[in-house]
Amino acid sequence: MVKRSFADDYGEGAHPRILEALARSNLSQQPGYGNDEFCTQARSLIRESIGVEDASVFFVTGGTPANLISIASCLRPHEAVIAATSGHISSKEAGAIEATGHKVILAPGTNGKLTPKAVQVAVNQNSMFPHNPKPRMVYISNATETGTVYTKRELEVLADLCKCLNLILFMDGARLAVALTSPANDMSLQDIYNLTDMFWIGGTKMGALLGEAVVIKDKTVADEFPYHMKQRGSLLAKGRVLGIQFAELFQDELIFDLAKHANKMAAEISSHFVKVGVKLQATTETNHVFPILSQRVVEALQKDFVFHTWEQLPDGQVVIRLLTSWATRVEDVQALKVRVSQLVGSTTNGITS
Amino acid sequence: MVKRSFADDYGEGAHPRILEALARSNLSQQPGYGNDEFCTQARSLIRESIGVEDASVFFVTGGTPANLISIASCLRPHEAVIAATSGHISSKEAGAIEATGHKVILAPGTNGKLTPKAVQVAVNQNSMFPHNPKPRMVYISNATETGTVYTKRELEVLADLCKCLNLILFMDGARLAVALTSPANDMSLQDIYNLTDMFWIGGTKMGALLGEAVVIKDKTVADEFPYHMKQRGSLLAKGRVLGIQFAELFQDELIFDLAKHANKMAAEISSHFVKVGVKLQATTETNHVFPILSQRVVEALQKDFVFHTWEQLPDGQVVIRLLTSWATRVEDVQALKVRVSQLVGSTTNGITS
Amino acid sequence: MVKRSFADDYGEGAHPRILEALARSNLSQQPGYGNDEFCTQARSLIRESIGVEDASVFFVTGGTPANLISIASCLRPHEAVIAATSGHISSKEAGAIEATGHKVILAPGTNGKLTPKAVQVAVNQNSMFPHNPKPRMVYISNATETGTVYTKRELEVLADLCKCLNLILFMDGARLAVALTSPANDMSLQDIYNLTDMFWIGGTKMGALLGEAVVIKDKTVADEFPYHMKQRGSLLAKGRVLGIQFAELFQDELIFDLAKHANKMAAEISSHFVKVGVKLQATTETNHVFPILSQRVVEALQKDFVFHTWEQLPDGQVVIRLLTSWATRVEDVQALKVRVSQLVGSTTNGITS
Amino acid sequence: MVKRSFADDYGEGAHPRILEALARSNLSQQPGYGNDEFCTQARSLIRESIGVEDASVFFVTGGTPANLISIASCLRPHEAVIAATSGHISSKEAGAIEATGHKVILAPGTNGKLTPKAVQVAVNQNSMFPHNPKPRMVYISNATETGTVYTKRELEVLADLCKCLNLILFMDGARLAVALTSPANDMSLQDIYNLTDMFWIGGTKMGALLGEAVVIKDKTVADEFPYHMKQRGSLLAKGRVLGIQFAELFQDELIFDLAKHANKMAAEISSHFVKVGVKLQATTETNHVFPILSQRVVEALQKDFVFHTWEQLPDGQVVIRLLTSWATRVEDVQALKVRVSQLVGSTTNGITS
Repeated sequence: MVKRSFADDYGEGAHPRILEALARSNLSQQPGYGNDEFCTQARSLIRESIGVEDASVFFVTGGTPANLISIASCLRPHEAVIAATSGHISSKEAGAIEATGHKVILAPGTNGKLTPKAVQVAVNQNSMFPHNPKPRMVYISNATETGTVYTKRELEVLADLCKCLNLILFMDGARLAVALTSPANDMSLQDIYNLTDMFWIGGTKMGALLGEAVVIKDKTVADEFPYHMKQRGSLLAKGRVLGIQFAELFQDELIFDLAKHANKMAAEISSHFVKVGVKLQATTETNHVFPILSQRVVEALQKDFVFHTWEQLPDGQVVIRLLTSWATRVEDVQALKVRVSQLVGSTTNGITS
Repeated sequence: MVKRSFADDYGEGAHPRILEALARSNLSQQPGYGNDEFCTQARSLIRESIGVEDASVFFVTGGTPANLISIASCLRPHEAVIAATSGHISSKEAGAIEATGHKVILAPGTNGKLTPKAVQVAVNQNSMFPHNPKPRMVYISNATETGTVYTKRELEVLADLCKCLNLILFMDGARLAVALTSPANDMSLQDIYNLTDMFWIGGTKMGALLGEAVVIKDKTVADEFPYHMKQRGSLLAKGRVLGIQFAELFQDELIFDLAKHANKMAAEISSHFVKVGVKLQATTETNHVFPILSQRVVEALQKDFVFHTWEQLPDGQVVIRLLTSWATRVEDVQALKVRVSQLVGSTTNGITS
Repeated sequence: MVKRSFADDYGEGAHPRILEALARSNLSQQPGYGNDEFCTQARSLIRESIGVEDASVFFVTGGTPANLISIASCLRPHEAVIAATSGHISSKEAGAIEATGHKVILAPGTNGKLTPKAVQVAVNQNSMFPHNPKPRMVYISNATETGTVYTKRELEVLADLCKCLNLILFMDGARLAVALTSPANDMSLQDIYNLTDMFWIGGTKMGALLGEAVVIKDKTVADEFPYHMKQRGSLLAKGRVLGIQFAELFQDELIFDLAKHANKMAAEISSHFVKVGVKLQATTETNHVFPILSQRVVEALQKDFVFHTWEQLPDGQVVIRLLTSWATRVEDVQALKVRVSQLVGSTTNGITS
Repeated sequence: MVKRSFADDYGEGAHPRILEALARSNLSQQPGYGNDEFCTQARSLIRESIGVEDASVFFVTGGTPANLISIASCLRPHEAVIAATSGHISSKEAGAIEATGHKVILAPGTNGKLTPKAVQVAVNQNSMFPHNPKPRMVYISNATETGTVYTKRELEVLADLCKCLNLILFMDGARLAVALTSPANDMSLQDIYNLTDMFWIGGTKMGALLGEAVVIKDKTVADEFPYHMKQRGSLLAKGRVLGIQFAELFQDELIFDLAKHANKMAAEISSHFVKVGVKLQATTETNHVFPILSQRVVEALQKDFVFHTWEQLPDGQVVIRLLTSWATRVEDVQALKVRVSQLVGSTTNGITS
């Protein structure tokens, strides 16, 4: 029997509607490099979802190119980007930002999020002209790398500070759809557009085979963005492949339905752990669940399920990370819950907590 | 009625077998970043086709990333790559190679191909230590940007010179499949492997949605190649998307069958032009046809077909470029031939040539 | 006996007045990084010489850093600079511009100079958005790498075209002082300032130990220029070393007196060659002399003098390059003339025209 | 009256012997770019001082170029350098290392020094192939940015770890001469050569107008080093300027005599503070003194002396930084001591310590 995986949210292919859309459009002859009618349609649907008619939208092949191209398209050589230590560009992109010549200034995150105070401290510590690179951008992720989401208030305060300090506010939205459908969220896509200078909407983790949609407000940056996409190797000849997928994702809000499913599956897992007395390292706001388990339970679960161990705690317990996605099956969640009950239920009945 | 296009070889989606393979494998849970079983299978099939068991194979998202990552992974900062003026990296990649810090030293091409003499001259002109960057690599395309192919003898002589001058020989194979199935070709995939240091096999132009397979001999370069893929933004989270496609392309030699079809369609068009008395700017070796037509005929053809005008000749005639692909329909070629006969036949009967 | 050298214009140390200025100021305690009083004084003298009170002036350590920092400070990643094939950045800087990420688009030079036509052609050939890098700057040298100078008319026409095409006009002035004191020149330093967007005044080849003064009109670029100087490693801790030298060079127009001497020495050599019947490959406009000599004469001259052989002509004759400088001694020019007369005089009497 | 400065160790010009050497050699005609006889002589003297006949030595214009060129010449694009948070490349070089494409991985310093443990932790945290850049080099400074020095034992243990982890050990020696003449030092220049892979000897802060000498063991790196120097803009046309200065600095161990003077002046200041009861934030190992003073005393001292305030302590006291150099005058140290006694003596009599 194959073990079921809660290891990540990119373990399967694409949502069936996306595959159908690819098949349906397959033999239509289209111009290359994003000039096809599907990209046009996808842009139009995204603009509608944002509620801004002249938002600029570009499709790139993945999260790292979305980040490196966006950042390199905005910064001058001596300018730097501030990011949380846990931020994807700080920790998981193999020095991709530095490879475009820019320093990533690290700031401590709070539940994966950057606070205005952390940004201000980073700016202060990098203000020795011309011996420090010039802080010029703030990078945040929503949802963050641990699944937490920004509230509107948090983002407003951060955006205000950025304006005040002349910093470009850039949001990595690899998991924006689960963020915007989180119970903890109080923002719309339009809010994201209004409060940031540039952001992207992840497709890869939200039911597409690949692809992310970068949204840009500044027309000067937008006009030249295809140069950067081409130069960094992320302008597909068959741009249609991305256009078709995003058109489908934004048709009837498919992307948000898929995100809701992921969040719901995570909430079920999360509340089950709580119900059987297992503590969580962090509250579950989107599709990440971080239960704290004994080594024995972890090993037992590993026989049937795939997931990452996240942290070894000093008391010998282990934090694991379970991720859900658009493709998570109800029956697998059910099986996980049953197994957790078997393993933990007995222990916790009357013993722990 | 929709005009039929001979504008390029990436105008349609993917070959149906590829879409089927994507659908078939869709719900299988796989690890990310190229560690899935489909990439493994595709690597194995490609190695088999090359006839070398330990060839290293990596899948990237497109031609420009294939070039920039391959080049950047081999060169030290002060090293340069020699390419024909008509080479893709010289003329169509928005300065992608320079953006990784390396100079592209231009050399004149002969029918789109680099000769040993041109390489030697380029090396001689860049030998003033340390005031010239150090020539360290030779970039060639096969088929070239105008559809010509290298003969085994040509490639052997070039490879010998490269060895002698300590130059890495790198082949851009965006159209390698049409090259290897060209009537003008006398090489196997194994010959390509043996005579170059690094090359890639294009999928985008040969029936895939996207993707190219980079083949590397040097184990030191290969071991670290995934770092470069990740850093330059071309390591897909769902690496499976590329693995599935290349596995299908190399199953039963599908890729070569598709290439043969493209070449056959081009040959038909080409010979028809010749038959009705139209001269070609270049002989048709693969899927490119360059007929020389009067402005009147070009305009008439443009009413029914899409293609690029390639060059205005001093005598007022026009060279157009017609490209065929795996997806070119026999009926469209037929329609084109009929229309050409109508437009040119009358003219040529007794008048021209 | 030591051979006297006409090999280049950086063979000696510094003009004695510069050494004296360094000694005189030596123990004065000054702030670092260009904030010293000598830099302030030098900036003020240069502004006076330009006749523009708010021109921005920065001192860097050499010609290659002057070029690479100026270019990198102006261009966005996807932008390219057009230069003559003979331009220093094209041919002698080890790929320094490419190492900052930018393509150098080559254009044919006419006597080392870029014509508006050549620029226009280069722009036209790089206008395929977004597949070509965007031409955004034109690099010229005055005097050029072969000692020729731009006339005011030539520079005006080029400047007009640049404005029209939104191109930044940047002048490498490694030998600007000999250009502005050339008999062929009709421009002032103020003309240079008015007609270009950015230029630099060479110190290294004009009597300084090292150092070049970059002059910038655009305040936005100027405000951030020290970041680029620091980041590229050309912001000296003891910035005074450059300030002291430029203050001295611009005191009583020393720099132009030194340039006049170099030009005068070259003119004497040049006219002597002509007088004894030797043809020149190019007219001598500044401090470069290119006589065409027989192999026998070249070898004989090499016994007493050091110089570069420049080109082997098809008829067996040889072009040599003789360079003069602020430090060229009258007696050495005299000795050279005598020796030339001895070697060539007899030959030319009645034999060669 | 001019205030005397203890602000830094690059406030004056050059040691008189250096100016004399420049004047003495001034009119000798020499080839450019480091091929002159003075560079040859300087290399020879440095090799003698190291005690290694075939050490490779190159002269660059400053500390930032020494660091960025050395690092870029060794690392592949995906490789990163580990440095203390207080390291010069981490904190004071405007992102110069990142501008060459490499990430600087921060590790906590201990008294400005990197411990093997900190290096090991940094490696462990960057071991997720290929999502982290590959740690490949360790950057240390000796003396550190706060004037502390490595002991032989410390360096040996670090060097062993680097060998074990395949890390290049690179030492920034902007203040190597004061380190090697510190009472806390137990290493020779030969030890530095043996225990590191690459290091540089600072001239700028040790009596030269400018210039640092990079010493390289690996012949492969050394052979190509001039390319990097040229490409990054640090290969002076008049290379002699650096050769003459280093030849003089290593003649009769001038550089170490100057360093001893700087250390002695610092020791006098330091012990005087201790004598009058002022605590130091750090022991004085080289030319840095960090007394902890009341705001009142700091302000009083600022009337006569220039120095940096280093840190505001929570209790309201202030740490200041006093730097001495080869040029620090005995009478200025005396004046400082007198003033300190006046200001602090009365306060401390009977009260503190």
